[in-house]
Amino acid sequence: MDERAALALIAADLPAAGDDAAVVDGQVLTTDMLHETTDFPDGTTRYTAGWRAVAASLSDVAAMGADATAAVAVYGAPSFRADEVRAFVRGAREVCEAVDAEYVGGDLDGHEEFTVATTALGRVGEAGPVRRSGATPGDALCVTGDLGRSGAALRLFGDDPDRANDLFRFTPRVAAGRALAAHASAMMDSSDGLARSCHQLAAASDCGVVIEADALPVHDAVREVTDGGAAARELATTFGEDFELVVTVPESALDTARDDCPVALTRVGTVTDADAGLTMDDEPLPDRGYTHGDG
Amino acid sequence: MDERAALALIAADLPAAGDDAAVVDGQVLTTDMLHETTDFPDGTTRYTAGWRAVAASLSDVAAMGADATAAVAVYGAPSFRADEVRAFVRGAREVCEAVDAEYVGGDLDGHEEFTVATTALGRVGEAGPVRRSGATPGDALCVTGDLGRSGAALRLFGDDPDRANDLFRFTPRVAAGRALAAHASAMMDSSDGLARSCHQLAAASDCGVVIEADALPVHDAVREVTDGGAAARELATTFGEDFELVVTVPESALDTARDDCPVALTRVGTVTDADAGLTMDDEPLPDRGYTHGDG
Repeated sequence: MDERAALALIAADLPAAGDDAAVVDGQVLTTDMLHETTDFPDGTTRYTAGWRAVAASLSDVAAMGADATAAVAVYGAPSFRADEVRAFVRGAREVCEAVDAEYVGGDLDGHEEFTVATTALGRVGEAGPVRRSGATPGDALCVTGDLGRSGAALRLFGDDPDRANDLFRFTPRVAAGRALAAHASAMMDSSDGLARSCHQLAAASDCGVVIEADALPVHDAVREVTDGGAAARELATTFGEDFELVVTVPESALDTARDDCPVALTRVGTVTDADAGLTMDDEPLPDRGYTHGDG
Repeated sequence: MDERAALALIAADLPAAGDDAAVVDGQVLTTDMLHETTDFPDGTTRYTAGWRAVAASLSDVAAMGADATAAVAVYGAPSFRADEVRAFVRGAREVCEAVDAEYVGGDLDGHEEFTVATTALGRVGEAGPVRRSGATPGDALCVTGDLGRSGAALRLFGDDPDRANDLFRFTPRVAAGRALAAHASAMMDSSDGLARSCHQLAAASDCGVVIEADALPVHDAVREVTDGGAAARELATTFGEDFELVVTVPESALDTARDDCPVALTRVGTVTDADAGLTMDDEPLPDRGYTHGDG
């Protein structure tokens, strides 16, 4: 059974699961595990690892339209070198500061493979949590920021590890998520890539989507590591791990949403009836992307 | 650097760390990582693993005297077998139900070694969080329940895995922690064993303790796996992983605390001045116990 099948099985047993984060008593709670083989390429500094691992969980809080309150992490490694542990904690603390949350520590675990488990806590705002399930045909389909940043980073680790580390340390879209909460009909993060995220959002909302490829905001770094065109588009839509927000907004609220959003909000398509399926430039949008836990 | 040294380093960088759980905005948050090599002996069922891993984090919430609200877990394994994943989730859910918390899911991660990361969330009650640092000379030193349960379980896995699994599935002392919050001057859980927990509490409170060995509540199962006497005492004081509460209570509040506590509360000693150090039956109490992450 692959990870997606197992998650579907769990969702059937646990009604509170199945969104980017669970909502309990006005709080949102979400957890992730990242490890060396699949998540931290050779050249990833411990500072970047701490930043990125905590950021991944903060991104799930952002995707619910919630305020980020706090985060914790477990640092699992074969040995605990003072400089590495401190760099990790500094990264974890600084990404929390970047989104007005508090990094409150966690635990250490002797572990053969470098493994990090992170958890973020948030507070639902006045507009309530934004789920994946509210998209309605006619809504504008939008994304924050640029796509393909992490895919580009991965290709840069060999030649330019400093640049790759910089690209890997994304700022979780907490401020954007909070601003969009009042306008969004559905929201999630693009951790599995735009294509797969759209499939998940469409399944939860029982809708389809049409995407215009030319409208996709592709990160500058993607152009550096590809010759553009189809390769750039592939990286921007299916690589994933970008942690931008994928959000649907009623047409009438789009201008206000864009004004309120502290980062670029780009319309990339439109929500359709479920019967129309998912397409990009009239071709079927593949349900392909980053499956967490592969490997 | 061993785990304790690294934790001390982190505590210096992070003022919010250093107790059983962090307190943020009236919530308590705590996380742990357990894995096959060190935490799940051969014969541990996935049901027991789910129960015990989540229980370990709920125990940290209990140690703060807080209500347990919710828990999440990451299930990391080389493959996801439906029966194993479901058994794990059932264990996680049932231990949450046992303490009036909600298990709200989590994540899966493809991982070479079976590894579980758990996080529990709680809410501070009216009496406020109980920290490790409030013990005062003259206070009674008490423990909930019985000591040595997990140590006995570990010796039973070979011969009687059913019994061992039963013993491994402890009920986190959330109800006791909540009841004791109004009376306790300091509290923590005994996850590192009574001896080491007392050293940690004494360091945080700048005090000493005297323990009377005959007063220790030793679990019945310990007598089965040892010939009693010194071996039983050793297992009950230094093996750890029992997740009982170690609590100090002003002498004047002891009877009320015992009446309020829903499980047995046994006085095992007295808080002294720091100069007196830590002793059991006039011998120095070794700072020896379970160091999480060893191995």
